[in-house]
Amino acid sequence: MKKYFKLDEWNILEEGFDPEYNEVSESIFSIGNGCMGQRANFEEKFSGSSLQGSYIAGVYYPDKTRVGWWKNGYPEYFAKVLNSTNWIGIDIKINDEILDLAKCTVKDFKRILNMKEGYLERIFTAILSNKNEIKVHSKRFLSMTRGEIGAIKYSVTPLNFNGKLEITPYLDGDIINSDSNYDEKFWDEVSKTVKPYEGHVMLKTKKLDFNICTYMSYELTKNSENITAEPSIFENEKYISNTVTVDCNKNDEIILYKYVANTSSRYYAIDKLVEKTQKLCTKAKKDGFDVLLKEQAEAWDEKWKESDIIIEGDVAAQQAIRFNIFQLNQTYTGEDERLNIGPKGFTGEKYGGSTYWDTEAYCLPFYLSTADEKVAKNLLLYRYKQLDKAIQNAEKLGFNNGAALYPMVTMNGEECHNEWEITFEEIHRNGAIAYAIYNYINYTGDKSYLGEYGLDVLVAISRFWSQRVNFSKAKNKYVMLGVTGPNEYDNNINNNWYTNRIASWTLEYTIQVINYLNENEPNILAELKEKLNFKDDEITKWQDIINNMYYPFDEELGIFLQQDGYLDKEQILVKDLDKKHLPINQNWSWDRILRSCFIKQADVLQGLYLLEHEYNLDTIKRNFEFYEPRTVHESSLSPCIHAILAAEIGNYDKAYEMYLRTSRLDLDNYNNDTCDGCHTTSMAGTWMSVIYGFGGLRVRNNKLILNPFIPEHWTSYSFKVMFRGALLKVNVTKAGIKIFNESNTEVAFLIYDKDYTLKNKGQLNIPR
Amino acid sequence: MKKYFKLDEWNILEEGFDPEYNEVSESIFSIGNGCMGQRANFEEKFSGSSLQGSYIAGVYYPDKTRVGWWKNGYPEYFAKVLNSTNWIGIDIKINDEILDLAKCTVKDFKRILNMKEGYLERIFTAILSNKNEIKVHSKRFLSMTRGEIGAIKYSVTPLNFNGKLEITPYLDGDIINSDSNYDEKFWDEVSKTVKPYEGHVMLKTKKLDFNICTYMSYELTKNSENITAEPSIFENEKYISNTVTVDCNKNDEIILYKYVANTSSRYYAIDKLVEKTQKLCTKAKKDGFDVLLKEQAEAWDEKWKESDIIIEGDVAAQQAIRFNIFQLNQTYTGEDERLNIGPKGFTGEKYGGSTYWDTEAYCLPFYLSTADEKVAKNLLLYRYKQLDKAIQNAEKLGFNNGAALYPMVTMNGEECHNEWEITFEEIHRNGAIAYAIYNYINYTGDKSYLGEYGLDVLVAISRFWSQRVNFSKAKNKYVMLGVTGPNEYDNNINNNWYTNRIASWTLEYTIQVINYLNENEPNILAELKEKLNFKDDEITKWQDIINNMYYPFDEELGIFLQQDGYLDKEQILVKDLDKKHLPINQNWSWDRILRSCFIKQADVLQGLYLLEHEYNLDTIKRNFEFYEPRTVHESSLSPCIHAILAAEIGNYDKAYEMYLRTSRLDLDNYNNDTCDGCHTTSMAGTWMSVIYGFGGLRVRNNKLILNPFIPEHWTSYSFKVMFRGALLKVNVTKAGIKIFNESNTEVAFLIYDKDYTLKNKGQLNIPR
Repeated sequence: MKKYFKLDEWNILEEGFDPEYNEVSESIFSIGNGCMGQRANFEEKFSGSSLQGSYIAGVYYPDKTRVGWWKNGYPEYFAKVLNSTNWIGIDIKINDEILDLAKCTVKDFKRILNMKEGYLERIFTAILSNKNEIKVHSKRFLSMTRGEIGAIKYSVTPLNFNGKLEITPYLDGDIINSDSNYDEKFWDEVSKTVKPYEGHVMLKTKKLDFNICTYMSYELTKNSENITAEPSIFENEKYISNTVTVDCNKNDEIILYKYVANTSSRYYAIDKLVEKTQKLCTKAKKDGFDVLLKEQAEAWDEKWKESDIIIEGDVAAQQAIRFNIFQLNQTYTGEDERLNIGPKGFTGEKYGGSTYWDTEAYCLPFYLSTADEKVAKNLLLYRYKQLDKAIQNAEKLGFNNGAALYPMVTMNGEECHNEWEITFEEIHRNGAIAYAIYNYINYTGDKSYLGEYGLDVLVAISRFWSQRVNFSKAKNKYVMLGVTGPNEYDNNINNNWYTNRIASWTLEYTIQVINYLNENEPNILAELKEKLNFKDDEITKWQDIINNMYYPFDEELGIFLQQDGYLDKEQILVKDLDKKHLPINQNWSWDRILRSCFIKQADVLQGLYLLEHEYNLDTIKRNFEFYEPRTVHESSLSPCIHAILAAEIGNYDKAYEMYLRTSRLDLDNYNNDTCDGCHTTSMAGTWMSVIYGFGGLRVRNNKLILNPFIPEHWTSYSFKVMFRGALLKVNVTKAGIKIFNESNTEVAFLIYDKDYTLKNKGQLNIPR
Repeated sequence: MKKYFKLDEWNILEEGFDPEYNEVSESIFSIGNGCMGQRANFEEKFSGSSLQGSYIAGVYYPDKTRVGWWKNGYPEYFAKVLNSTNWIGIDIKINDEILDLAKCTVKDFKRILNMKEGYLERIFTAILSNKNEIKVHSKRFLSMTRGEIGAIKYSVTPLNFNGKLEITPYLDGDIINSDSNYDEKFWDEVSKTVKPYEGHVMLKTKKLDFNICTYMSYELTKNSENITAEPSIFENEKYISNTVTVDCNKNDEIILYKYVANTSSRYYAIDKLVEKTQKLCTKAKKDGFDVLLKEQAEAWDEKWKESDIIIEGDVAAQQAIRFNIFQLNQTYTGEDERLNIGPKGFTGEKYGGSTYWDTEAYCLPFYLSTADEKVAKNLLLYRYKQLDKAIQNAEKLGFNNGAALYPMVTMNGEECHNEWEITFEEIHRNGAIAYAIYNYINYTGDKSYLGEYGLDVLVAISRFWSQRVNFSKAKNKYVMLGVTGPNEYDNNINNNWYTNRIASWTLEYTIQVINYLNENEPNILAELKEKLNFKDDEITKWQDIINNMYYPFDEELGIFLQQDGYLDKEQILVKDLDKKHLPINQNWSWDRILRSCFIKQADVLQGLYLLEHEYNLDTIKRNFEFYEPRTVHESSLSPCIHAILAAEIGNYDKAYEMYLRTSRLDLDNYNNDTCDGCHTTSMAGTWMSVIYGFGGLRVRNNKLILNPFIPEHWTSYSFKVMFRGALLKVNVTKAGIKIFNESNTEVAFLIYDKDYTLKNKGQLNIPR
């Protein structure tokens, strides 16, 4: 764990340049706007260690599957997040020497991620081998208001010489995915133009024919005067550039403003793509950098109004929570229900795919509470629209009658993961998708969703569960064999408590929804039954499973067992393990991990978190106290659940410890893998740690429940939540809680087990 | 299952040419001599479907591991069986048209594998598109007496024209492995020469520097007169050739005799390799084709004297058993203890590696009974010499104190398999390696092996088992978690009965060996204890494990359970499964296979077979009758064990059914995969089906036990076995058994539970 970045409430700060740490910084300082995103690569050439990455939401490549040993049922391809045209490129030459921070002396280097206003800034002085010294100051951002637009202000000042400066803004589409299975390039050139001060590159993917177009235009000033020199132009395969040569004197400031539009055939007709992109780019240039940046600051101000968390008395915690919220808002804005939240967002390409169960289990609550209802609804619709593919996926594995198994990883609804123990067996993901429907309805009260979209998905998932269990004569119960639970440190296990429970819960909830529709929307239900070819004896079967599901349980310890035989494992606690073994996933062979009792991430506890309302505090406490000491938290998705449950059972120290672990995971490079990208989806878990954990927020029976506590050395914390049309600000101090209703909607609360109502624009003060 | 080849007692016959079936034929008609081997590719060009394969024993390539998802502990490479120089090549041009059976009309095609004398023959008439008709007759073999030598007689006769025949014998080292992970070529050229009538190509592998040299020389006759025409010579990268042009008239017979020597740096100094190879080749040419072929027939005659099985009244069974014995003798001759028996021998490259547990569990008995003791001993020494690597392998997985885990697949002692559920978890292989020591001593009586080599291996394996189990407080027993048993249709299971049993048995046997040495060779034991840093409290620990090992057992059914929870699976019998689902490994997704009750190959039964003497017939019968109907036999190693146990419990019909399934597996392409090569190691299982199954052969307390029965429609069968210096011929008819002792050594028998002694050259007649 490294304390590399400086602490600040609103900024991430890198001071001094460590080339070894550059790939981590590239991840941390990533910028995005929901439509596209990129790692914080340098504009100028850099020959040192760097992972180039520029991504356009929803544009992917079906890379042929690579495995050692083929297993029946594996998908043919893995949908890869696609690294696309490098549009930030600006080569700088000083008296014929190219600026390359790997090859010159760098002084006073600062990299700043301004989270308040949403831009990336860099300032440094470079001393070239020809002794020429220059100061560089760059700012860039991806517009939150104009999804296709990126802009860069790049300033160069000679400090100790008069001479020749060559500036080469370019677009380069000759890009590789470092994650390519067979070292193939994924892009073909469609067209390009290059003229003085502008040009474009249009590419298409070698498979699936995604077309993307990038248009750049730029302007140059010297000491605020426009430069109009004729640039030399150049083109190569998938590449265009302009080079402007400027004679300059010591202390002259030369500024390049580069405006870029990135569009794709996902939104525009292919034959209009260049024209459309040009227009967007030209408009941006016309409005100018300062106007765009002002828009950006305003847009982020709006975002922060809805989602900010303010922590007083702990700068590290304050910086961390804002970083998490900032990255989430950069990744997904909820406007396009074909998009989703990849595990690394726009900060890296590892793992591929865009959709994991992370979305439903971790991200949905964040968007439910910090954005308009339609954002969360779009996440649900994403799965609804992929239901047919989930049914096909289940058929491939031998299921029938409309049973659906949603993919472990997907871009377009098709499974693209290829590790049998996960692809085929980590089926609890289906449960999270069903639970998300419950969660959405419970939070928003929008029951119309059930008849319109929800029941289709619930029935398909319930059908899957009812076929996936089998009746064990030996146990006289239904069992579920050969699964992998959320704890991926055991595979092909029997009767994973979490999976059995979430399966049975799905059946219960689906029956409940059918009953609700039967009472409230009988016509819709009748139509649905016909469409789904639904027979009532399915309910009989489901009820039988609900009544006779087997749950591994240890009487003596009074705990649910993670799986059959869990107590046969040698029982060792993480604290008693020599530290040199940690993380075990980097130090132990896979078999050793599998047969150990160590748990990667919340598993039984994940179930108790989701279905908390069904269990009493004692049960939660006993299970937490058994499993927490055996959990190594080697998934970024683990500490947040533990933080929430620790808070629930009053173990505030543990809650705070877990919060720290999740919130600064990337900033402190906790798992030594931030170079690959940020753990974007787990950032939603961090948000949950504060709101569900410290704040104790829940929704039950249409009421907002709060049970806040405050970590000992914090002065106060405040958070915003949206709830059924209301925007609430909750402020927690040691003295008590204040709640401001910033909206015109009345809200009912249960706070510390007492009922309150908060009128429009009203305020509640509740002493502790 | 196809009846493609003609039945014959001594030959495999293909009549008529089916290009679609060519790759299967190439496997079936493979030839080898223990030092090298090759698929039955055509000498002349063939542009149709073909898998080229020419292999030199012990020469391999460490191909960089390819996996989808890396698991800690995976080896860096997979040792690939290396396809090497194509030395059989002879291009034939008739009046400027190249002979290519894919592009002309083929008549009267015959391919013959003469197993009695050990050669491959081919006869056909080809009508070219220029209407020229020729007859071709080729014979080739790999000399059993001169390990480096291969010889070809290739005869061409124009049938309807006078014209020009161009004959181009060549060597081509520009070879690919179809099994290459990254489509790399594995060979570099070292040197080559080409002169009239001879030349060489020397290559080395890109890694590990295996050097191989191939030398060819040839002679040509027309109607038995030598042709001395000056050939044109040609060379290219890794390629040399001569082209001789012959004017010929209708019915002239032109014969090319091609002699080739293949040597490697495994046997000769690199700088002497070309010279040595040339000498061997020149000598072969000097002796001539007919002399070499006579030697070959004599060598095979010797082999058959020791290992033949004669079946009267069932040509299909007769042909099959000879084919199995022939392939085994072609694959391994036991002269070099660095060699082993690859799963496909020299008949294909799939699976790579040369050594699996097949060797100890299936092949050892064949070589014990049909060859000199030293052959079986060399198979044991192979593992002994790799003990250090097995200890390193175990260390990599977290074991210590000299514990050894032998690799699942290896070429040089290092693990090279990369499927975690097998590589790390199919650890029962260690048990087979320990058992092989017991088996060898039990059969040969050579107890000197124990102190010299055996104990080192036994202690290292016992140490592994004692660390691999853990004490389960829940069960109050030692358990073994996270293993894959012989039945690979379940993975990461707990308490596989077979693995627990063979582990405990290893501990028992190791203690027994220590006690034996203590009594009989105390000095050697003392030395060994010091060398192995062996403490007596290890025995105490082992004894505790032996006494308290957990064995899953079902009281009601009275059977050992394959693993914890086996009876939770839905219990379906194979016979009740719709045939369209079979084989399940081609029709079901992997997860479905895993959670089914279906068994790929003998698992509990494998244990009952190996440790048969510890169980009563009732136990064997109950377990057989439970597991056999659940076994799909989708491993070639399964039916033989079932045949032996079926015979043991008197279920002769099942024994015969299983024998048929194993013996004609490749000849009838039962699993539809013979195109990749033959199932060489399972051929030893076929031999066991007859000798251990039908013959009931066992060795107990230094006596040879026989309990023969004869399948109903067989007239008689005879087999040879060697036993402690004696060569015995056993003949079984419905009337009774005759045993001839062809040696000068007296042998004690237990036949149908009665004691007999058979003097030198004596004969026993025992009526049934």
